[in-house]
Amino acid sequence: MTCRRLLLASLAVLALPLPSAGDEPAVPGPKPEWALAIHGGAGTIPRDAPAASIAARRAGLRAALELGRERLARGDAALDVVEAVVRLLEDDPSFNAGKGAVFNEEGRHELDAAIMDGATLRAGAVAALTTVRHPITLARRVFERTPHVLLVGAGAESFADETEVERVANEWFDTAHRREAWERASGRFGTVGAVALDRDGRLAAATSTGGLTNKRWGRIGDVPILGAGTWADDRVAISCTGKGEEFIRHAVASQVALRMRFAGESLAEATRSVLFDELPEAAGGLIAVAADGSIALPFSTSGMYRGAADSAGRFELGIWRELDGTAGAADPQGD
Amino acid sequence: MTCRRLLLASLAVLALPLPSAGDEPAVPGPKPEWALAIHGGAGTIPRDAPAASIAARRAGLRAALELGRERLARGDAALDVVEAVVRLLEDDPSFNAGKGAVFNEEGRHELDAAIMDGATLRAGAVAALTTVRHPITLARRVFERTPHVLLVGAGAESFADETEVERVANEWFDTAHRREAWERASGRFGTVGAVALDRDGRLAAATSTGGLTNKRWGRIGDVPILGAGTWADDRVAISCTGKGEEFIRHAVASQVALRMRFAGESLAEATRSVLFDELPEAAGGLIAVAADGSIALPFSTSGMYRGAADSAGRFELGIWRELDGTAGAADPQGD
Repeated sequence: MTCRRLLLASLAVLALPLPSAGDEPAVPGPKPEWALAIHGGAGTIPRDAPAASIAARRAGLRAALELGRERLARGDAALDVVEAVVRLLEDDPSFNAGKGAVFNEEGRHELDAAIMDGATLRAGAVAALTTVRHPITLARRVFERTPHVLLVGAGAESFADETEVERVANEWFDTAHRREAWERASGRFGTVGAVALDRDGRLAAATSTGGLTNKRWGRIGDVPILGAGTWADDRVAISCTGKGEEFIRHAVASQVALRMRFAGESLAEATRSVLFDELPEAAGGLIAVAADGSIALPFSTSGMYRGAADSAGRFELGIWRELDGTAGAADPQGD
Repeated sequence: MTCRRLLLASLAVLALPLPSAGDEPAVPGPKPEWALAIHGGAGTIPRDAPAASIAARRAGLRAALELGRERLARGDAALDVVEAVVRLLEDDPSFNAGKGAVFNEEGRHELDAAIMDGATLRAGAVAALTTVRHPITLARRVFERTPHVLLVGAGAESFADETEVERVANEWFDTAHRREAWERASGRFGTVGAVALDRDGRLAAATSTGGLTNKRWGRIGDVPILGAGTWADDRVAISCTGKGEEFIRHAVASQVALRMRFAGESLAEATRSVLFDELPEAAGGLIAVAADGSIALPFSTSGMYRGAADSAGRFELGIWRELDGTAGAADPQGD
């Protein structure tokens, strides 16, 4: 090879995007046709937590993951699937969303949710709801029926009536274990979320929560703040759980998306950088799925209730570091 | 030069960061010791708008710019200055924030505000307030007195009582011109904002608004959504005005900051890219100041009430494309 050729060849190599650590696809083999991740909250989960409570949450996650798997496999839209999965988790009293939401300082429930369609950037969110059984569905109605993105409080409840979204008494959300947790001022978490890539390549994200136990009346966390706790675009869909205020102050969900877009980071790199380099220690976790079907499920707390599935046969649930599932492998992003 | 040396030299050149177009400082000469930008809303501003109304707004902007200039020159903190400037504009009935806020569909006023300290990422926001005279001050109390970032509605009003923030009757915000606009369903804008760099190199941003004329009860726009309408970090402070829902769906304020951080764009490039390449046509405008003292005031509407000042003697007000000021030069970012 002549000097000139050697030089040109080296320049050509340099002009290619550099592969960076962590760019390995999370799932070996061809790009999955669809992919799904769900969470039921991150936080301190003691290994000796009551077995019945752990089993109930695991069963709830499994049911949600099975529902999402079935619907994505048959070609349903990511937006419909994340809504359906979150609705199921909202009705599950084990999680801090819908039925089973935590009590605020007034001994009542205030619910927040957001949903975003990555293909169109349509987004809807609701906050400080006290009587809407499925906040995630009302969030979707916001972008379907109004020019707005975020509706809160009594105005949002009145919108629920107009759009025939089911309302219940605030006491409907009560559960004995949340009341007990409120009295002990513990049990702070259990936000739920889902992110999906569908067969048509569309991404969507949905998150729903009762917020912080004993939170101040009117407090809103990161969940209904698009770009903080929830985000989807044409590259990635993200749903977060943890110390909501920190997720707002670091614009976590949009930062993941913009690191991928502008810094060329992989899904694994972007999610880990934000969680471990930007946020304070033990701030929480997130689930994310990228347009190539890769999935990330990182968390900086001792545990995160989570699950992942895809068209390549992955079907895994996890609580602490290790995942158990049909794929059998530990998730490299799950630590 | 040997082949090997030529190759190594070419690699060394390639390893340097490439300068990109538009990296020229907006202000020639040494870095300003402090810098300030303010806005009073972007939208369709007819050239033949009533002279008295234009004159009143221009006078309000001038008073706010003078106040901010004086305080930054004497070394006050950026956070204190943006709060003080926005308080002045909240009391000015010409603008859609505080006194003079627009009417919602119920014929009432609902106010939103946010403030963020770039040096510490402390942030506070309030939304759907009906009785707080200075929403920007209550927003600051949120991060000073609670672990939260965002408080809304009646819970936020009760927090105002606890922290001795002045409350007024909702009718106090009434003005004849906003009532008339509501009856005509026009006059949609007038959000106010301020961004500042202080002598100690700290950045801060503040925004306050009455939202959209005739908006739905409970609707919240981009202003109190940190990362959408308001943002500050150690690189840049941003305050937005315009079609709030679009600013949320594009995470405008955090996108400006993250383009500068991860794509290496200048302040001028980042603000123009977001406003003209990402957002729909005529979506609004924003003001931003970077850590180097450069200022950007771009807008995609026919006009934006705005002003800019710095320690190098700049002192300019503008409404349409052209700026008038002691510096005498047209603002290259102001188109």
